[in-house]
Amino acid sequence: MATKFRLVLLGFGNVAQGLAKVLVSKREDLRRKFGFDYKIVAVADIAKGSIMNNSGLDLGRLLSLAREKGSITGYPGGLKDLSSVETIRKADANVLVESTWTNLKDGEPGLTHIRTALNRGLHVVTTNKGPIALAYHKLAALAKRKGCHLRFEGTVLSGTPIISLATELMAGSRINSIRGILNGTTNYILGEMENGRTYAEALRTAQHLGYAEANPSGDVGGWDPAAKITILANVLMGGKVKLTEVKREGITEITPNDIRDARSMGRRVKLVARAYQEKGEIKAQVVPERVPESDLLSHVSGVLNAVILSTDVQPDIAIVGPGAGADSAGYALLSDMLALNRVL
Amino acid sequence: MATKFRLVLLGFGNVAQGLAKVLVSKREDLRRKFGFDYKIVAVADIAKGSIMNNSGLDLGRLLSLAREKGSITGYPGGLKDLSSVETIRKADANVLVESTWTNLKDGEPGLTHIRTALNRGLHVVTTNKGPIALAYHKLAALAKRKGCHLRFEGTVLSGTPIISLATELMAGSRINSIRGILNGTTNYILGEMENGRTYAEALRTAQHLGYAEANPSGDVGGWDPAAKITILANVLMGGKVKLTEVKREGITEITPNDIRDARSMGRRVKLVARAYQEKGEIKAQVVPERVPESDLLSHVSGVLNAVILSTDVQPDIAIVGPGAGADSAGYALLSDMLALNRVL
Repeated sequence: MATKFRLVLLGFGNVAQGLAKVLVSKREDLRRKFGFDYKIVAVADIAKGSIMNNSGLDLGRLLSLAREKGSITGYPGGLKDLSSVETIRKADANVLVESTWTNLKDGEPGLTHIRTALNRGLHVVTTNKGPIALAYHKLAALAKRKGCHLRFEGTVLSGTPIISLATELMAGSRINSIRGILNGTTNYILGEMENGRTYAEALRTAQHLGYAEANPSGDVGGWDPAAKITILANVLMGGKVKLTEVKREGITEITPNDIRDARSMGRRVKLVARAYQEKGEIKAQVVPERVPESDLLSHVSGVLNAVILSTDVQPDIAIVGPGAGADSAGYALLSDMLALNRVL
Repeated sequence: MATKFRLVLLGFGNVAQGLAKVLVSKREDLRRKFGFDYKIVAVADIAKGSIMNNSGLDLGRLLSLAREKGSITGYPGGLKDLSSVETIRKADANVLVESTWTNLKDGEPGLTHIRTALNRGLHVVTTNKGPIALAYHKLAALAKRKGCHLRFEGTVLSGTPIISLATELMAGSRINSIRGILNGTTNYILGEMENGRTYAEALRTAQHLGYAEANPSGDVGGWDPAAKITILANVLMGGKVKLTEVKREGITEITPNDIRDARSMGRRVKLVARAYQEKGEIKAQVVPERVPESDLLSHVSGVLNAVILSTDVQPDIAIVGPGAGADSAGYALLSDMLALNRVL
């Protein structure tokens, strides 16, 4: 019998390596508990090289190579130097694991990877926000036409399962509105500013700790949470929100004075993402707000993230957890595959 | 083709009526979105009477009768006066919806209802804590032997889906420990005491608002959260916890002084339920704790409940939401049936 999950990994950075670690360490456990069995048939990464072997690759060995050499081309045997698209086309795989870098301009190269895979009849699990924020409805329709599953739990709140929570566990509820803290970097910086640091100092610490990138504009300009609230608005509320139309204010203009003012009113400045209905349309925004202490969001601190869902059937439900981190995002990919495993 | 969900409702109190309301109001929506189609073949309630008609009963009419007359025996036609066990045996049903009262001594009559149904090959969805707290492993084994599903999302945190979150969305994680606020009544009373009320005053208000019962010992003595943490420990962590062996302290001895003392240390008194490992064994306890402000649990106020899960793969994940309420518990029963609908 063919192995149930035959995987192509496009992208073999921290997230895919986080997945690889848990796949290796839990292999027996996953097989015994869930009948989840896998084989890696190809790995391709723009920096680390590519390799394909339809008989299966040793994931532990790939991990060592990536860590020690920064390249997987030293792996013995197999087909090398295929492009990522050729890899999808030639691999004897049934699932694409897409974790290449997020591009919020046109979604590439992830968008092409996902389209190519779905067109070939592969299921797709991804942590790549670009394609889902920019083209969710089209990709979902394509997946449906091809009888494939497209899952992307890790695109929002990383390994904290907000998307499955809303679409599966809360199926039968109508989500009327969404509020959340969707970016850990900015939440960390705002917290440091509460502790008396300036914006510049707090940003430097965040960069030092690896929370913020050298060019931090995706986070502090609000693009990252804007992409995430676009995904939530479109997936959970059926919106037609375009990322470029999300009302978006970052935290670069927040001063220590603003923070103190808010504290003196018993409030905290938080970068709050919202999705809501207005005149029959779903809208989304990311704007710094002065959140009162009675609001759970005011107590979501550091790099934690949170989402609060308002529905038609019961009081609000909130989920709080990690919003980033390679292990957490890698685990999101596993949880998507375990969800596939329940229905395939 | 036979209707996919042919339901017997045992118990037709507030929770079952909460379910009935959402089943009636969302009938078309559920059919269209999920292919979820149902028929009520029998309803039995110790106070309101019983009725069975394998051709189907009008749920809206049963709801009106229950509300207006407090009895459903005026429903035209059908078989009346069957016992609940006879109802399970004679109904042309495939799912038992069990929402009779919780009995933490011996689980009856719910335990017999659930056993009888599983033995007849019916799937079971229930909000009844008694049978699950006292006999989870036996009932799960019986369900497995009979090829049936046993779901009980509403036994803990009501319509806030903690059980499916851990067992389905976080499948592949090992739950190492659990902390939570699992009882809204005591959390409300402790909050009122923070606002300056005595225990007796706060309890009276809670009774007035319908949060606490005339005999409040199940809540204030910690039995209700003890039953819930027993369920979480046994279901999510594979424990063999016995309810009677849970270390249990209620809030009846908490004084306004205790509350003030805690506040002066920047802490709040909360009735915290915990499940954890000790010498290779899973243990559970319910004890008032002084929770620091840095802990999310200290900000779970009023009748809200929360659970925090610690796992082996990523930082803690918390879910916060309603822990009680008829509509919320009724919705939990629907969510259990929608989960069945995905796999049947």
